[in-house]
Parts: sequence; structure tokens; C-alpha cells
Amino acid sequence: MNLLENRILAEGKIFPGNILKVDSFLNHQIDPILIKQMGKEIADHFMNKEVTKIVTIETSGIAIALTTAFELGVPMIFAKKTKGQNMSDSVYVSHVFSYTKKTESTITIDKQYLNSKDKVLIVDDFLATGQALLGLMDICTQAKAEVSGCGIGIEKVFQSGGNKIREKGYDIYSLAKINHFEKDRVVFENE
Amino acid sequence: MNLLENRILAEGKIFPGNILKVDSFLNHQIDPILIKQMGKEIADHFMNKEVTKIVTIETSGIAIALTTAFELGVPMIFAKKTKGQNMSDSVYVSHVFSYTKKTESTITIDKQYLNSKDKVLIVDDFLATGQALLGLMDICTQAKAEVSGCGIGIEKVFQSGGNKIREKGYDIYSLAKINHFEKDRVVFENE
Repeated sequence: MNLLENRILAEGKIFPGNILKVDSFLNHQIDPILIKQMGKEIADHFMNKEVTKIVTIETSGIAIALTTAFELGVPMIFAKKTKGQNMSDSVYVSHVFSYTKKTESTITIDKQYLNSKDKVLIVDDFLATGQALLGLMDICTQAKAEVSGCGIGIEKVFQSGGNKIREKGYDIYSLAKINHFEKDRVVFENE
Repeated sequence: MNLLENRILAEGKIFPGNILKVDSFLNHQIDPILIKQMGKEIADHFMNKEVTKIVTIETSGIAIALTTAFELGVPMIFAKKTKGQNMSDSVYVSHVFSYTKKTESTITIDKQYLNSKDKVLIVDDFLATGQALLGLMDICTQAKAEVSGCGIGIEKVFQSGGNKIREKGYDIYSLAKINHFEKDRVVFENE
């Protein structure tokens, strides 16, 4: 069992609708030592992929994307969530539906920062239905950038977004894979 | 001239209304090496203040707050911006008006993560009118936590928020202090 799985068991809180809150170390209060270790593990996995950019989405992906970027020595870009007005030709645009919040966000990345020479590692804190990943992959496709893979903190395997994207041939590396919730207990895939 | 000032001169873009965009290294694409160095300089300045928590506000303060937290070996908390609905008794609440966006945000921090034993270093990327700092200081006051100081990336000195808070006795340490914009040129306070 890794550091992240231990912290999830010790401090994660399960809410109705299969929602896991990890606000004490990942999503509101952040443990910088844990986040650094998570970034290092993701970077180690993709070390030989010649990654040129880390891409994530605001807000809670920023910390883990930053520590991954530091380990790989490449810039990190966070896609911005907007309300859709004043959209200019200078940005790539995609749309992400959040099943947790039941809202759609428009996400943008400035065209200056992604191009056809880029090999992109997408990093995010959570992977459930995969909507955020698909939105970021859509932006990479628009930029003609290559997606080298995806590094994830916590994957809810039972929501199947990750496996659907793996079936398309992408390397998705998740530090903690939750198989299911059993009453108030988290059951990892490797148990 | 420090690393950050050099990057501002090389890549910063000035827009009408005294807006400085630093999207290529700080606010959209992030240079992890620069951000680490910025965090280290802020941490060095406050090294002897026995800081127990770093507090910032989403989104663009997260990166610099995280690297500062890592250097000081303490947790980082980012205040969440909400639309004000479903506010519970379990969070501290304050309000921040953005002069750039002409909108008011409600910001919250969960009461679990700040208390009267905390010595808080507030960290943010920009300081202009000081509204974000005042909102975070208000939350610290509600939590009866001590504010040990504020570490800032870029301060627009001419918007005077920083000096007003300094007059109250707070130590505000800014890595780059902009005295004014001269046509398309940034003029730093120390020039």
C-alpha cells in the first residue's frame, strides 16, 4: 500500500453518491510532502516519454501537476474554466460536464502554449467518468499535440472513465485505484 | 534585479487599466523552476516566524503557496471561491471584491483547518488593492489565528493595497514591486 492509499484510508470521507472527500491533504488543505511524492511517482512512470508539457485543469489538479512538472523539468499549463463569454480565437476551447456538480464548464488553453511539437502528459487529482481528461485530450487534439499519457492521483475504477480511455490505447497511470466503497470503507483494486 | 523581475520584463504584457498579464510563466503556463525559487525566497524571509500554515486563495495563488509550504514544511490551505449557496456553519466565510473583474467572490475555509494555535503566512501571486489579502486576514481573525505575514509574487505598489496593510503593522514581503507602468514598460520600485 502506498502513501496516498494510506492517507485515503486514514482521512478520506465517503459521502452519498460515491463521493470521496480528501480535503485534509489534497483538495483544500494540501500536504506538500505527499504532493511532491505523488508528482515524483507520476514523473518516474513517464520518465522516458520525452514529455514537453504537463497539462491539467483548475483548481485541484494544479498542485500535483506542478510537482510532476518540476520532476520532469517542463512547464505546466492549467486549463482555465470560463463562463463561455468573450471567447477569442486565441484559445483552444472544450467542454467538461461534471457529474458531481451537474454543471458544464467551458475550458480553455491559450494557443500560444500548445502546438504540434508538444508531447503532453495530462495530470489530474481525480479520475471518475473521465470527462475532464477527455476535454483536455480534445484540446491536445485541436493543438495537434501528442498525448503521451495521463497521471492521476485517485481513480474511481467503478465509474469506468479510466478504462474506457485505456481501451483507446492511452497509458493512464493512477496512484490509488478505488475498486468500490463498502459502507464507509474504501476498497482498493489491489486488495 | 531578481529572476521574477527579469521574467516580467521579458514576457509580461501590459493591458489597458494597468493590467499585467504573466500567463507565460505564472498564471496559465507555469514555470516550475521559477515558482520553486519564488517559494524559497518567501520561505527564507519568514523562516524564523514559526509559521504553521500557508493560506492562499484559488486559483493562481496555489502554485507559489505550495512551493512556499514545501520549503517551510507546513500544510497549505487554499480558500475556495463559491457562489454563496449552501454555506454551512462548518466554514469561515469572507468576501473579496475583484477590481479587475468587477465581481465579488465569497471565499471559504473549512473550520477544521485553521485555529487559534496557527501562525499563518498568507501567500498570493498578485497584490494590488489588497482585497484578497484582507479577505484571507478576515478569515484568520475569525479563526483566532495569528497572521505572521504575507508573501507576494508581484505587488503593484501604485494601487496602494500593500502599503495600507503595512501601515497596520503587517510584514508584507513582495518579490517584485512595480512602481508604475510607463507606456509599455514595467518600472520597478527599486529602479
